[in-house]
Amino acid sequence: MSKLNSKASSQIGKPPGSLIFVGKKKIEKSRISVLSYNEKTFEEKELKNVEECFKLKNTSGVTWLNVDGLHEIDIIEKIGKHYGIHPLTLEDILNTSQRPKVEIFEDHIFIIMKMITFNEKNCKIFSEQVSIILGKNFVISFQERPGDIFDPLRERIRKGNGRIRKMSPDYLAYAILDMVTDYYFMILEKIGEKIEEFEEDLISNPKPDALKNIYEIKKQVLFLRKSIWPMREAVNKLEGSQSSLIKKTTIPYLRGLYDHIIQVIDTIEINRELLAGMLELYLSSVSNKMNEVMKVLTMIATIFIPLTFITGIYGTNFEYLPELKWHFGYFGMWAFMLITVGGMFLYFRRKKWL
Amino acid sequence: MSKLNSKASSQIGKPPGSLIFVGKKKIEKSRISVLSYNEKTFEEKELKNVEECFKLKNTSGVTWLNVDGLHEIDIIEKIGKHYGIHPLTLEDILNTSQRPKVEIFEDHIFIIMKMITFNEKNCKIFSEQVSIILGKNFVISFQERPGDIFDPLRERIRKGNGRIRKMSPDYLAYAILDMVTDYYFMILEKIGEKIEEFEEDLISNPKPDALKNIYEIKKQVLFLRKSIWPMREAVNKLEGSQSSLIKKTTIPYLRGLYDHIIQVIDTIEINRELLAGMLELYLSSVSNKMNEVMKVLTMIATIFIPLTFITGIYGTNFEYLPELKWHFGYFGMWAFMLITVGGMFLYFRRKKWL
Amino acid sequence: MSKLNSKASSQIGKPPGSLIFVGKKKIEKSRISVLSYNEKTFEEKELKNVEECFKLKNTSGVTWLNVDGLHEIDIIEKIGKHYGIHPLTLEDILNTSQRPKVEIFEDHIFIIMKMITFNEKNCKIFSEQVSIILGKNFVISFQERPGDIFDPLRERIRKGNGRIRKMSPDYLAYAILDMVTDYYFMILEKIGEKIEEFEEDLISNPKPDALKNIYEIKKQVLFLRKSIWPMREAVNKLEGSQSSLIKKTTIPYLRGLYDHIIQVIDTIEINRELLAGMLELYLSSVSNKMNEVMKVLTMIATIFIPLTFITGIYGTNFEYLPELKWHFGYFGMWAFMLITVGGMFLYFRRKKWL
Amino acid sequence: MSKLNSKASSQIGKPPGSLIFVGKKKIEKSRISVLSYNEKTFEEKELKNVEECFKLKNTSGVTWLNVDGLHEIDIIEKIGKHYGIHPLTLEDILNTSQRPKVEIFEDHIFIIMKMITFNEKNCKIFSEQVSIILGKNFVISFQERPGDIFDPLRERIRKGNGRIRKMSPDYLAYAILDMVTDYYFMILEKIGEKIEEFEEDLISNPKPDALKNIYEIKKQVLFLRKSIWPMREAVNKLEGSQSSLIKKTTIPYLRGLYDHIIQVIDTIEINRELLAGMLELYLSSVSNKMNEVMKVLTMIATIFIPLTFITGIYGTNFEYLPELKWHFGYFGMWAFMLITVGGMFLYFRRKKWL
Amino acid sequence: MSKLNSKASSQIGKPPGSLIFVGKKKIEKSRISVLSYNEKTFEEKELKNVEECFKLKNTSGVTWLNVDGLHEIDIIEKIGKHYGIHPLTLEDILNTSQRPKVEIFEDHIFIIMKMITFNEKNCKIFSEQVSIILGKNFVISFQERPGDIFDPLRERIRKGNGRIRKMSPDYLAYAILDMVTDYYFMILEKIGEKIEEFEEDLISNPKPDALKNIYEIKKQVLFLRKSIWPMREAVNKLEGSQSSLIKKTTIPYLRGLYDHIIQVIDTIEINRELLAGMLELYLSSVSNKMNEVMKVLTMIATIFIPLTFITGIYGTNFEYLPELKWHFGYFGMWAFMLITVGGMFLYFRRKKWL
Repeated sequence: MSKLNSKASSQIGKPPGSLIFVGKKKIEKSRISVLSYNEKTFEEKELKNVEECFKLKNTSGVTWLNVDGLHEIDIIEKIGKHYGIHPLTLEDILNTSQRPKVEIFEDHIFIIMKMITFNEKNCKIFSEQVSIILGKNFVISFQERPGDIFDPLRERIRKGNGRIRKMSPDYLAYAILDMVTDYYFMILEKIGEKIEEFEEDLISNPKPDALKNIYEIKKQVLFLRKSIWPMREAVNKLEGSQSSLIKKTTIPYLRGLYDHIIQVIDTIEINRELLAGMLELYLSSVSNKMNEVMKVLTMIATIFIPLTFITGIYGTNFEYLPELKWHFGYFGMWAFMLITVGGMFLYFRRKKWL
Repeated sequence: MSKLNSKASSQIGKPPGSLIFVGKKKIEKSRISVLSYNEKTFEEKELKNVEECFKLKNTSGVTWLNVDGLHEIDIIEKIGKHYGIHPLTLEDILNTSQRPKVEIFEDHIFIIMKMITFNEKNCKIFSEQVSIILGKNFVISFQERPGDIFDPLRERIRKGNGRIRKMSPDYLAYAILDMVTDYYFMILEKIGEKIEEFEEDLISNPKPDALKNIYEIKKQVLFLRKSIWPMREAVNKLEGSQSSLIKKTTIPYLRGLYDHIIQVIDTIEINRELLAGMLELYLSSVSNKMNEVMKVLTMIATIFIPLTFITGIYGTNFEYLPELKWHFGYFGMWAFMLITVGGMFLYFRRKKWL
Repeated sequence: MSKLNSKASSQIGKPPGSLIFVGKKKIEKSRISVLSYNEKTFEEKELKNVEECFKLKNTSGVTWLNVDGLHEIDIIEKIGKHYGIHPLTLEDILNTSQRPKVEIFEDHIFIIMKMITFNEKNCKIFSEQVSIILGKNFVISFQERPGDIFDPLRERIRKGNGRIRKMSPDYLAYAILDMVTDYYFMILEKIGEKIEEFEEDLISNPKPDALKNIYEIKKQVLFLRKSIWPMREAVNKLEGSQSSLIKKTTIPYLRGLYDHIIQVIDTIEINRELLAGMLELYLSSVSNKMNEVMKVLTMIATIFIPLTFITGIYGTNFEYLPELKWHFGYFGMWAFMLITVGGMFLYFRRKKWL
Repeated sequence: MSKLNSKASSQIGKPPGSLIFVGKKKIEKSRISVLSYNEKTFEEKELKNVEECFKLKNTSGVTWLNVDGLHEIDIIEKIGKHYGIHPLTLEDILNTSQRPKVEIFEDHIFIIMKMITFNEKNCKIFSEQVSIILGKNFVISFQERPGDIFDPLRERIRKGNGRIRKMSPDYLAYAILDMVTDYYFMILEKIGEKIEEFEEDLISNPKPDALKNIYEIKKQVLFLRKSIWPMREAVNKLEGSQSSLIKKTTIPYLRGLYDHIIQVIDTIEINRELLAGMLELYLSSVSNKMNEVMKVLTMIATIFIPLTFITGIYGTNFEYLPELKWHFGYFGMWAFMLITVGGMFLYFRRKKWL
Repeated sequence: MSKLNSKASSQIGKPPGSLIFVGKKKIEKSRISVLSYNEKTFEEKELKNVEECFKLKNTSGVTWLNVDGLHEIDIIEKIGKHYGIHPLTLEDILNTSQRPKVEIFEDHIFIIMKMITFNEKNCKIFSEQVSIILGKNFVISFQERPGDIFDPLRERIRKGNGRIRKMSPDYLAYAILDMVTDYYFMILEKIGEKIEEFEEDLISNPKPDALKNIYEIKKQVLFLRKSIWPMREAVNKLEGSQSSLIKKTTIPYLRGLYDHIIQVIDTIEINRELLAGMLELYLSSVSNKMNEVMKVLTMIATIFIPLTFITGIYGTNFEYLPELKWHFGYFGMWAFMLITVGGMFLYFRRKKWL
């Protein structure tokens, strides 16, 4: 899982707006790919140097420029200069510990989100910052590492599935946001399954490490919450921005996206409550077990300690100890002890310990 | 109970607005029934194919089209095309894990709710998505499975009871919403009874599985809360929409409905507090029991361990052990032990353990 | 105490606005009484049938019509018809599980409140729904059962005490609301006394049923909270309604009433915190007691188990066991045991167990 | 400490606005003192009867009328009549269980606050209601008992320190409010010291009554919170009132006062969190102590019970028991026991109990 | 760590606006330094007396006047008089227990913040109040003690790095605020590391002082929260002030600063939740350990107490005790005891204690 405490201290004292890559280098060389399309035509290519894409700036249709890897600062800088992006925005793109947000500028909209992926093997959640710049006829997206998460989207563009080829760039930006949100649902489903699994374990056979597992899931849920919570406000801002870059036909999609984000947040809150309930369940079953153990101990001790005392009596070496001389003394002792045990037994019954 | 973590991951990467049924198929074949009425006449029939209903679109009076079963996507699609419904709305109808909401369009209003039903046998709560489209002279309702939950409403229409036959379609939509809300009251009453029952158990005879039961009810309450909470905002939006589809005479009914929903939410919150209180009650009575057990153990051990020690003394085989030779040594030992026990007894009394 | 989970399920499926009495019948026959007054004159009578009061509708001065008992639906219906009350309002009057609220209509204002009374004998709280309809020159109040709770108010009208005879009906409605609120203060005072009493018990002598008592008070506090909380918003609405039925001179009184309600809510919240604190106090004193018990057990066991072991050694029957032959072996054993006990004693001292 | 549950039930059923003193009589005879000043002159006197002050009503400069003791209702009534105060306001002055508030009237402003004082000896907090009426050229303050809390303020006026002599009555009212707020800081400092003291105790030597102390402080903090919380809103209302009685030059002082109140509230909230943390600390150290005790018991029992069993074996009186005959049987037994103890010791080491 | 309960009681009763230094004297003599610059030129000097800086008031370019040490009140007073600062503002500068805030005046803006520094050695957090006055062409900053925290900023000005030399004084004020905020990130990173470290400890080897450590961190987090929380509102106010002192080009930087503060608050909240989770983890692992200890005790006692009883039986000295005479009596006893132990063993297995 990514760290819950973010922003590297290495940036302290640097002038704001200075372009420094803050994060871990997750790819050797940045990869730049371009996808430009309109309703009829479609073109896709991988660029060797960033300048190639600049001539696309004024073409009709939609251009989607995707940059994988953020450590080659000069690429970001050149794009920034060419498209007229504010230096603070460029800084935000490079600092991978940003909070999700939307910023509306006159000629472009800047969006930061957290893309969440799940590693099946070690059950860890990974987070990656995705920045989007939406302009009049282009979308530029920045990712920390190359991945195939947007491939279904590219495929839809290539095949002309759905309405994406007919729509303006804001729809493309929406489609990216929607895809990111979908991943939250997937991961919440995974977490939900894990919670259900633990629940059964807790009830049938609580183990000492159950709490640790609950704590781990709780941390993951906190992490998801931190990542999705600001997106609510951000998408709301986008929907109500009245920017000319957001077409009226896209608004219902953004509203749907907003509903989905609320749903993710709802589910996260419910998971938190379930985890709190599971904790109580666990602590209580530990208490119950302890109670049971104590009862066994008490029963054994309560029965045998008095009996041992009786044998102790007749184990003493007094010269004058009349019972020892009696012929049935030994059997009398047994009888007395059996009566004692019987009394104890009835007492335990009444106390509902047996 | 339905899953608390919703939205199927199967939809990830699909273009938004693509019609895919998300949910479990709960009926073999979709059933379409039509009820059209005005103040004087009344007609009811079951349709074989969906096109039959289209000619009803422009009749005067109110037409209520009810579709049971959502897996036959082409039916939904045809209705959507005929009545001019937005593709995203159709997607919402088909995705049975939607959050309750109201969306106001120019010529129709779209409402999603969660209908809650209760299975007496296994004490489980089931949830079903009910979608309503309210138009100028029609109401279309979609259910996941055929059920008799709306039968009292149909009966009122058939018999002309109350004011429903005299009112416009918005009143019919309100009546459906009101019926759905009434079911929440019924289920809360059931849960309230269960809580009261458990309360008495907890106080008179706390059992280890009490906590599990509390946890189960807590989950149900969380589930109800998740289902009803968004309806508050939704009905409020409906009431204040100023859409021409909502007649002025219907507004007081919607306000009453809003009050009922608030009341449901109030009751849910109180149930949550009661459950938290019961948990504390349970944990404390477990603690008390443990305390009682410990006291018994301590008393037995405190009395008999020293006595056994004394017998141990006189059980030693020292050649020179004067007391053993005394004629009343044995009875002296008894006297000493009785005094010891008496002292212990007074001590316990003072400590209020007896 | 009244049920915390309200609204009877018997109403499910009934058309809204249908007049059905929901609640327990608390009086055999409804009682209708009329009090009409102005600054100079005053008249009071008990009516045999409801129609008698209708001629009073247009007299000058204030008419206060009070109906005790809600099960005779036709009385309510006739009043409703005569004074032009909305059917939904009448339904609300009859359904005794309503949430407190205020509804402003053009020619009348409808108010629902919960009157709380306290049974000294069994320490239970009872709640009764009081509905008020405030018109241009009349106030109609509905109670579930006849009671003397409004008698001080009637007395004030009869005697012309205070300013009530000089004021318009809105002041009368205010006076009723104020009286209802005063009862909350009285009950909170009772609860406050009980809490203080328990506090002392908890500290001096915690008993196992303390928690149950705390839980019971907590339920009562929750119940009060549920009843008073919505009145806050309701009175605020009344104060800011700008209805012509609320005279300017009455506004300061309503503001004072609002302050009182806030004060009730404050006190309820503080009581909840105190109860939570008492619970912690109780659980901790249980823990402390357990600790004390454990210490006694541990001390006894730690002292005597080793000593008994020593006597065991010399109780063995080995043929060759040198110490037994020593002349002072027995006293040597005692000396050794005393040293052991002394060491233990010092150890316990250091551990602060003695 | 004053009661947390306030408003006496003795007032139930009384007409609103009726002047009844609600509270404890804290002074034998009311004391009325007058301080009138302007930038140059200054006069101070104690009045024998209230009428003396009425002639001061229209003088230029500022008149500060202070009344100590509220049980002589006719004094309050006369002042009320003379200065045109609303009867409800007079009722509020006399009812010493009011919530702090500000009410803006056309020609005067009415302020209620809770003055908090601290009794060093028994560590108790006392609360007194201070009511202020601010008029065009006068301030009237009402206190429950005579006290020297405003003496520093009087001294400032007498000596002409600071800017108070140059300012209008609203500044005087502000100065009183500021002084009241300062006392909260002082008491919070005291509480903070107590908390720090307890903290150290909790960690070094937790005692059973620690929890009771924490609970007592918690109650005090709740009491402070109840008293200061409404002042936030009240002062905010005063600052934004746009009443002609509040001069523009006083606004920054009121803003500063508002900041101070927020600071008091912040500190109270932090104290509550610290107290919650201390409770956890305490409960955990009780648990830890119990654990430690249990470990000692278990160690002693686990070592000696098996050894005692071994001695028991050789204490039996079987005729044929070979080991007893062996010459080194006794020493063999010792050796065996030492090995057993050594094994136990290693086991405990591995479990980290030693 | 600084005290959580602030504002010294020494100020009670002093006239508001009176200049008294409230805080600890952290430097012997105040130090005043001036940095004045524009895009081309740059000048820096240390002043001997405060009057030297007054001639700089009307120069073009930006003047940054920094005062270290607040106890020389006449310096503050002279600056206040010269720059026309409100006395209350001067009081706020001198009282080092202020809440962070922004106040907008016509010709200057006053900002208070808490600068947080961290002492690596004893893991303590120190807080220092930094006050800033932003005027048309100057920034005056006040610190409690001389420090090198602003040195990177001075360096940037000296070298002309970034855009600071080209910007107006509001940018300088922003840069100071940004630097202060950066320190919060650094300290949160430190706290995050400590939390992670403790987490591992808690799981692998919980120690009794773990809770104390958690409590200490919790206090630090509370302290950070108290210091940063008001800055959120303050910076928001600054951003939306529409004061002519805030240039349009600075707004995006302030927005970025606001985002950073929100991020700090987010992280603080998450840390609080993690600490709460760790507490539960700790308490549960203590419970688990206790359980384990109890199981060992119970097992030992349950096995050996009955066995010891058996040996007790045959240790009695009855004259007639048949088994003692049997030749294989001793071995029979052993056999019986082994069977008993085996039974116990199976019982424990079934209970899952082994």
